[in-house]
Amino acid sequence: MYKVTVLVNRRRSILDPQGKAVELGAKQLGLTDVINVRVDKKITFQINTEDEAVARKEAEQLADKLLANPITEDFEVSLEKIV
Amino acid sequence: MYKVTVLVNRRRSILDPQGKAVELGAKQLGLTDVINVRVDKKITFQINTEDEAVARKEAEQLADKLLANPITEDFEVSLEKIV
Repeated sequence: MYKVTVLVNRRRSILDPQGKAVELGAKQLGLTDVINVRVDKKITFQINTEDEAVARKEAEQLADKLLANPITEDFEVSLEKIV
Repeated sequence: MYKVTVLVNRRRSILDPQGKAVELGAKQLGLTDVINVRVDKKITFQINTEDEAVARKEAEQLADKLLANPITEDFEVSLEKIV
């Protein structure tokens, strides 16, 4: 069994409206020194296999086809064996 | 200046519909051994202060009041000084 974490990050060159909304909210709370807010996704799951190569391939396939938008987002996959 | 990362995690006891949707999508891609999917948020920002105590207080205030839903979500804050 592998535990997988996929971080899906909006490309830094692309405006992040959710981040902008948080920045505005921070200002309204009086936190005026909060800047450059980015809101990204962290997806965690388990893959029920003992083969690390299979786990990595499946995790990357899932990230590429389902989790990240190839136009606007990048992703990084990390695996950890669970015993 | 401090770089702050806030991880906002849905409580594990609470059903995660986004995670369930990813699990279903994985099955449709033929990835039937993907289980226990959770979709969480990772928010990163900078706080323009040199005082670590101020940075931590502001980051926790922002997480508590704006980023996490106190009913369904927990958060963890980590800080890193940027030079």
